[in-house]
Amino acid sequence: MLKYKQVIVVRKDLKLSKGKLAVQVAHGAVTAAFKAYREKREWFERWFNEGQKKVVVKVEKLEDLLELKEKAEKLGLPTALIQDAGLTEIPPGTITVLAVGPGPNELVDKVTGHLKLL
Amino acid sequence: MLKYKQVIVVRKDLKLSKGKLAVQVAHGAVTAAFKAYREKREWFERWFNEGQKKVVVKVEKLEDLLELKEKAEKLGLPTALIQDAGLTEIPPGTITVLAVGPGPNELVDKVTGHLKLL
Repeated sequence: MLKYKQVIVVRKDLKLSKGKLAVQVAHGAVTAAFKAYREKREWFERWFNEGQKKVVVKVEKLEDLLELKEKAEKLGLPTALIQDAGLTEIPPGTITVLAVGPGPNELVDKVTGHLKLL
Repeated sequence: MLKYKQVIVVRKDLKLSKGKLAVQVAHGAVTAAFKAYREKREWFERWFNEGQKKVVVKVEKLEDLLELKEKAEKLGLPTALIQDAGLTEIPPGTITVLAVGPGPNELVDKVTGHLKLL
């Protein structure tokens, strides 16, 4: 059983295309992975060596992302809130996704366990 | 003008769902980013500090990914070929995406410049 994961939370309300969404998710994954590498090296190493499990889930709106970020930070999980300047589909500066972890499953689940898969 | 980018090449023939595709792209992005961090630190730092530009493009089939990987490696670009064990939509072990870079635009374009955006 894998013990570590990273969850990337996306906003349903933006209705991004497949390609744009994938780029935003990847921005979040890379940013939070490097944050873990610097600040939670053991979590990072275990997650990476297990095969870097990632899950993409959805929320209704921006406020949900911000609440989840606060909750994750209180638990000591690395997070990355992505604001993309180069999007053609939505206004510049729009916050698109939140990455939570890598971290231990039980900790990550406290933040995102109730959310539905994209 | 941004001078560095990472391109993630996806197989059109797999017809992955939005969520699965985003996970595969993120696996590729993270793996190639850490490879660059270890082997091409200067490229990595510049790309990351510029805002880590990522582009997702498509090819028809597996053989195209393998050819692009060889070409990228000959140019000294970091690459990551992703084989996912945990997919529910396709057989385990299926190679899904190739990440090329981060690296200088002109070098990355020699490998993926002719490909269409997803």
